[in-house]
Amino acid sequence: MTGSLKFIGVVEKISIDESKIHVHSKFCDGLKGIAQFSHLIIIYWIHLRDTEADRCTLRVYPRRHKVKIKTGVFACRSPSRPNPLGLCVVELTAIDGCTLTVKGLDAFDETPIVDIKPYLPRANSVHDAIVPEWVLKGPST
Amino acid sequence: MTGSLKFIGVVEKISIDESKIHVHSKFCDGLKGIAQFSHLIIIYWIHLRDTEADRCTLRVYPRRHKVKIKTGVFACRSPSRPNPLGLCVVELTAIDGCTLTVKGLDAFDETPIVDIKPYLPRANSVHDAIVPEWVLKGPST
Repeated sequence: MTGSLKFIGVVEKISIDESKIHVHSKFCDGLKGIAQFSHLIIIYWIHLRDTEADRCTLRVYPRRHKVKIKTGVFACRSPSRPNPLGLCVVELTAIDGCTLTVKGLDAFDETPIVDIKPYLPRANSVHDAIVPEWVLKGPST
Repeated sequence: MTGSLKFIGVVEKISIDESKIHVHSKFCDGLKGIAQFSHLIIIYWIHLRDTEADRCTLRVYPRRHKVKIKTGVFACRSPSRPNPLGLCVVELTAIDGCTLTVKGLDAFDETPIVDIKPYLPRANSVHDAIVPEWVLKGPST
């Protein structure tokens, strides 16, 4: 069983921290009301890892965190995973037509976007969630 | 351009708040180390909305929140959206082999799972994110 994804937009990297998300015009109506949210959850397609080898990878060394034991891909944010879905919580800083400007999107230029969801603190914010110590030693994602 | 998803597991609903996620045996190695996290992000395939009509829907009334103005699907958590991806932050309460027990997964029985990610408070917790007032009037998701 499989699912088929449409790409609804694409990333334009502006600087280290800032990106634009160009939503394709046929999906632009889906943005109505989005300006009322300060933060969004972006789900993107890690297209550079959409390879047979990456998608068969189940254990990795989370290198950016200097982890020296192999970790399951579902226990880290490895871009190599069965489904190359990336997820970032971003700050929405501007909207111009079908283009969103966001801060904190950890995705390369030209990355396809598959979904945009509003960030809901009641459901999505767990400030005291427990993580292993290695998570605190690298970048935030 | 499209992306193709493999289903890595399936939901078994236990009670209103509790579910089991049965990870298919071929993906089970990807769970190594997951017990060190208290919370996970589950991305699932809203299979009942994988229809042409639902996937062409761009504006909805978020009914559970009694919203009376049409809202873009990217500005709410509508299950009708171009890609029927659902997302929940859940608490991990038990692990038995390839089966995770979680609290807070808002997905029906037999829903396919497409990804499991560890919840990282530094990157994922924004307690003061701004939302419109209607978001506060219904259920948390």
